[in-house]
Amino acid sequence: MSGNTFGNLFAVTNFGESHGPAIGCVIDGCPPGMDLTEADIQPDLDRRRPGTSKFVTQRNEPDQVEILSGVYQGQTTGTPICLLIRNTDQRSKDYGDILQTFRPGHADYTYLQKYGLRDPRGGGRSSARLTAPMVAAGAVAKKWLQAQFGTTFRGCMTQVGELQIPFEDWSHVPNNPFFAPMADVSAIEAYMEALRKGGDSCGARIRVTASQMPVGLGQPLFDKLDADIAFAMMGINAVKGVEIGAGFASVSQRGSTHGDSLSPDGFRGNNAGGVLGGISTGQDLEVQIAIKPTSSILTPRESININGESTEVITKGRHDPCVGIRATPIAEAMLALVVMEHALRHRAQCGDVAAPLAAIPASAG
Amino acid sequence: MSGNTFGNLFAVTNFGESHGPAIGCVIDGCPPGMDLTEADIQPDLDRRRPGTSKFVTQRNEPDQVEILSGVYQGQTTGTPICLLIRNTDQRSKDYGDILQTFRPGHADYTYLQKYGLRDPRGGGRSSARLTAPMVAAGAVAKKWLQAQFGTTFRGCMTQVGELQIPFEDWSHVPNNPFFAPMADVSAIEAYMEALRKGGDSCGARIRVTASQMPVGLGQPLFDKLDADIAFAMMGINAVKGVEIGAGFASVSQRGSTHGDSLSPDGFRGNNAGGVLGGISTGQDLEVQIAIKPTSSILTPRESININGESTEVITKGRHDPCVGIRATPIAEAMLALVVMEHALRHRAQCGDVAAPLAAIPASAG
Amino acid sequence: MSGNTFGNLFAVTNFGESHGPAIGCVIDGCPPGMDLTEADIQPDLDRRRPGTSKFVTQRNEPDQVEILSGVYQGQTTGTPICLLIRNTDQRSKDYGDILQTFRPGHADYTYLQKYGLRDPRGGGRSSARLTAPMVAAGAVAKKWLQAQFGTTFRGCMTQVGELQIPFEDWSHVPNNPFFAPMADVSAIEAYMEALRKGGDSCGARIRVTASQMPVGLGQPLFDKLDADIAFAMMGINAVKGVEIGAGFASVSQRGSTHGDSLSPDGFRGNNAGGVLGGISTGQDLEVQIAIKPTSSILTPRESININGESTEVITKGRHDPCVGIRATPIAEAMLALVVMEHALRHRAQCGDVAAPLAAIPASAG
Amino acid sequence: MSGNTFGNLFAVTNFGESHGPAIGCVIDGCPPGMDLTEADIQPDLDRRRPGTSKFVTQRNEPDQVEILSGVYQGQTTGTPICLLIRNTDQRSKDYGDILQTFRPGHADYTYLQKYGLRDPRGGGRSSARLTAPMVAAGAVAKKWLQAQFGTTFRGCMTQVGELQIPFEDWSHVPNNPFFAPMADVSAIEAYMEALRKGGDSCGARIRVTASQMPVGLGQPLFDKLDADIAFAMMGINAVKGVEIGAGFASVSQRGSTHGDSLSPDGFRGNNAGGVLGGISTGQDLEVQIAIKPTSSILTPRESININGESTEVITKGRHDPCVGIRATPIAEAMLALVVMEHALRHRAQCGDVAAPLAAIPASAG
Repeated sequence: MSGNTFGNLFAVTNFGESHGPAIGCVIDGCPPGMDLTEADIQPDLDRRRPGTSKFVTQRNEPDQVEILSGVYQGQTTGTPICLLIRNTDQRSKDYGDILQTFRPGHADYTYLQKYGLRDPRGGGRSSARLTAPMVAAGAVAKKWLQAQFGTTFRGCMTQVGELQIPFEDWSHVPNNPFFAPMADVSAIEAYMEALRKGGDSCGARIRVTASQMPVGLGQPLFDKLDADIAFAMMGINAVKGVEIGAGFASVSQRGSTHGDSLSPDGFRGNNAGGVLGGISTGQDLEVQIAIKPTSSILTPRESININGESTEVITKGRHDPCVGIRATPIAEAMLALVVMEHALRHRAQCGDVAAPLAAIPASAG
Repeated sequence: MSGNTFGNLFAVTNFGESHGPAIGCVIDGCPPGMDLTEADIQPDLDRRRPGTSKFVTQRNEPDQVEILSGVYQGQTTGTPICLLIRNTDQRSKDYGDILQTFRPGHADYTYLQKYGLRDPRGGGRSSARLTAPMVAAGAVAKKWLQAQFGTTFRGCMTQVGELQIPFEDWSHVPNNPFFAPMADVSAIEAYMEALRKGGDSCGARIRVTASQMPVGLGQPLFDKLDADIAFAMMGINAVKGVEIGAGFASVSQRGSTHGDSLSPDGFRGNNAGGVLGGISTGQDLEVQIAIKPTSSILTPRESININGESTEVITKGRHDPCVGIRATPIAEAMLALVVMEHALRHRAQCGDVAAPLAAIPASAG
Repeated sequence: MSGNTFGNLFAVTNFGESHGPAIGCVIDGCPPGMDLTEADIQPDLDRRRPGTSKFVTQRNEPDQVEILSGVYQGQTTGTPICLLIRNTDQRSKDYGDILQTFRPGHADYTYLQKYGLRDPRGGGRSSARLTAPMVAAGAVAKKWLQAQFGTTFRGCMTQVGELQIPFEDWSHVPNNPFFAPMADVSAIEAYMEALRKGGDSCGARIRVTASQMPVGLGQPLFDKLDADIAFAMMGINAVKGVEIGAGFASVSQRGSTHGDSLSPDGFRGNNAGGVLGGISTGQDLEVQIAIKPTSSILTPRESININGESTEVITKGRHDPCVGIRATPIAEAMLALVVMEHALRHRAQCGDVAAPLAAIPASAG
Repeated sequence: MSGNTFGNLFAVTNFGESHGPAIGCVIDGCPPGMDLTEADIQPDLDRRRPGTSKFVTQRNEPDQVEILSGVYQGQTTGTPICLLIRNTDQRSKDYGDILQTFRPGHADYTYLQKYGLRDPRGGGRSSARLTAPMVAAGAVAKKWLQAQFGTTFRGCMTQVGELQIPFEDWSHVPNNPFFAPMADVSAIEAYMEALRKGGDSCGARIRVTASQMPVGLGQPLFDKLDADIAFAMMGINAVKGVEIGAGFASVSQRGSTHGDSLSPDGFRGNNAGGVLGGISTGQDLEVQIAIKPTSSILTPRESININGESTEVITKGRHDPCVGIRATPIAEAMLALVVMEHALRHRAQCGDVAAPLAAIPASAG
């Protein structure tokens, strides 16, 4: 309740700063008896980690995860799982500039005003580096959900800056540094190259889905599945918008087209994005998020210093020109954490409910 | 944590069904010593209540609120405030059709599959009628925030179906049944009239703001102010998308334009929507939400019955053709509840922090 | 989290004051599909209600419970159950004395200092009358636990003032107004009569148990079953001590005698009180609580007034001379609520654990 | 909510096992701007750590704490403080015996039945070693409370086995390994020596207090200060009973003697133990707890093995013959954590309440 724990039954408490000795999390509430080693977690961390292409920050972090507790002889024991990731490439440098001024669009100003002080090293607690422990925790949730229901999570980039990214096939996503679902990403590369040379940054739109969803997850009125997804997504660094299913397009739809027809063969559409009345339908969860451009850029901008006087800010150092590029595994992880939480909550309250109807197939094909 | 309590320190627990004897809520955690009577709450309920124009459901509910506890001699005592609203116009009718089939786009299917049974009377618990107690609770939060910080909340409709609604002035909002910020709403009336005749429904886009915001509200990493706003908004019936500030438009913005410059005279823009790093900047909170079209419509649609067999569904009875029309006071109330919660949380942790810098004016004008 | 909700998954939010229009609670998280009517709840309320003998307060309250929500056609729907109890016998009288002075041993002083104001009518929120909704909620929990596991709850008085009450048999408990497990309660009657004539009050010791307990309930480290029992019991008005199993007697026991031996026929004792390591063993839960003497008495006592000046306090009006007399059904209800909460929590995390060993019989007999 | 986080606003999440690589905790919600280094925490850890006398376990753990996050340039930043303590003296040995059988009075049986598996190394998660991170977290709370209100925490042993320990003076407590408030502890030494030779264990009674308490902490109905104290204390390993103020002695008190008179010079007694109606009075908090004898003893006992067959259990290895000996700093820490939590909660809700009356002195002397 103090802001750094995500979830209640599968509760992930996050700690650390960008340039402190370590970052990590504690997962409380993991079901016991699941096989778990670092090898289950590392692949997702590797997908998120920096330094893997020239389009992301050049900070070199192996992001090796270490399980400190909660696992005995390769199995979860039901007790807290502490995951630790050492910071290894904190550059020793002078943060004087960042300490004295506020980057437009950055949390510099708000952290200082809220807490009265701030850790300026690499953004301190406001750094997107703190998403790494969530990716690690998400991997644990993914494994359990896969085993329990066959649920799988996927994500991809659908837009970068003004550039729309057409969906070709999921199979392309792991083959390029952008998580783009297309074979030829040369246009994205050119776009990013131009951006980098211009010393500027851009936003991105990410799509994330869950397939093979159980029916019945979500707690109306407030802890709706989609409400918790929105909470999770908007809480990712730099996210400014969240859509479920048809999202903002539903504003101009008619009820007769928006409502997904049901048939014995399955739903005939997924404008719902897999949620009706805050409860999962069994269709794929479909989520899109908007990520704003990085605020740490070389382009000079008007700002003020900590005395309230006018100044100009230029931000050097290692930064992602598009923080959205690495957002896909993060959004997947957060979605998995939401589904995990609701799977446990549903079992708590409705563990002996027999669904009156065989679940409708997710899609009528 | 079971889904029907909103907030932790200013915790609102909601109960009731559309056609039960009563709906209401319990507010736990209200600061003591605030003057409070029903007259502080009723105006917002009146703005939301049904039956006030031909463009909304004709169910006639006075929505008179009664304070059952937590107030002594006109002052809050710091103990739970129970607000009760009697249902008075539940039509006695046969719900056979609704019980036997599933409306496309409605929670009929998911409630039944989750709980094994459902209350079909007027949508039962999934009815938008359950937003009334939140509007009542929001009025309490608004009053405290106004007294404490001068914070005020406003909302308006910005789009209905395909029809964009240009912003003319806040003063028009109370003068038409759509909460439209424009003088002449005849085009909206015509649009809705055609929709109604066609037996269909449409979506809407709502904007909601908070002005005179204190700096420093919000708890990163997860309980960010904007994350909690997204949670609150996506939890409102029929909402499919949420944006903060520039929202999805930020995807195609450059960092050099998105980041709101700071100057001694104030911020030079509000792409942030009043939140940076999950913490309020002191600028106006700017939120937009997408509301899907009502799922209860006269147009026949393909569906299945509770035996899983094909059928056709037509929904008669009293329904809003655009549930978004009455959404403005609801969204205002939910925003107020989020700000209230975070005002108390901030005071808990940072009650003795002296902000290093005088707050920047919300806008450089 | 603001103090008036008990439990998280089976969350009971309590509202009301002693002399307000009504008291009640909202139960959030009740499993759906359970038969439930007022008749399931009323008997426990009748056991607790005032005015049933000359040894308790003469306030005459029928404590008729009304289910306002969460039940459809006699079954729980999984949505919040609001239980309402009207106050009917609030005496209109002058509270001037109570408002101006502080009763020694009463919450008068602390409520005023905490909140800055207080509702003095019948003790306002600090009245033991607010246990009635908990008894009602406990009846719902008892019913579910009985159906699910066969768990039953019993309680009795084991001491009143200096008077030890020997345990004869559970069957006597409903046959006397003291919940005493003995046939002849004339000694208690005489004791209470002398106390009443003397204008004084006394304490009591209550025992409460749960039988047919499932193994495995409780969440170490902190949300241990016994820790939550202690929390629930100490939260009952006037309770000053809680023991589990051997309790304070375990201080002078040896490890060789305290540890309950296990045998294929069952445990050979219950010094544990049914909990080891914070987790239920399947043995009976055994809890004892100490209840202090009522603070509202006719005997004059030294105190101060609200200006901080010396005064003498005499409390007239209708008060229980031993608040412990009616505490038995309250303690049972609170114990049931704790067990219910942990049954749901356990199912959430460990719903698919197969206990390696057949449960040991509760007792080797 | 999954059992391993203590507190909500000052939330301490505990992780680790007795023989894993490390134990520790994450403190979320610490107010920013407080000076904090390891040197503030280590002294309390040193008071609790094993191996300091021949009367406690001979496991040799330096219990050196490392601050991994949440502190920048020696000041708390308001972000999560991760405290890490390495395990260094885990003896490599065969746990076959413990794995195959259940120690009477130990959590062996319940952990296995709940989770389906258990970590047997040194008791795994059920080890009292997990109190070390709480002592560390408590030191942080103590420092803040001391600075804010002058509140101080003290504890001592009042009974060990059948041996009553008379209170002479607080100054003796740090001068003996038992935390006994008496000058000459030779009787205790002799008692413990005999016990050790007999291969048995004994219980203890601990008293813990807080002085210079602010008035008004605690949230009725349920989150009362004393209810949370009972929760915290009963959650400590091996605790079987908790008393506040007069505790069980209040059962045989009269109301005219139990209720502490108020006078302009202060309260004339402290039967209340510093809490009335669940809210602090400003008097000293007075708490007593009963600690059961250690269950790991050399004396052979009847038990069963994991196949449910009869067996005899003898526990060798390094164990405390009286786990109560090291309980004093633990109980102090837990009390400090409860007070800290409620100090923040009170500030959240009542931060602008002006107490009507100057606080009464804690004691009339």
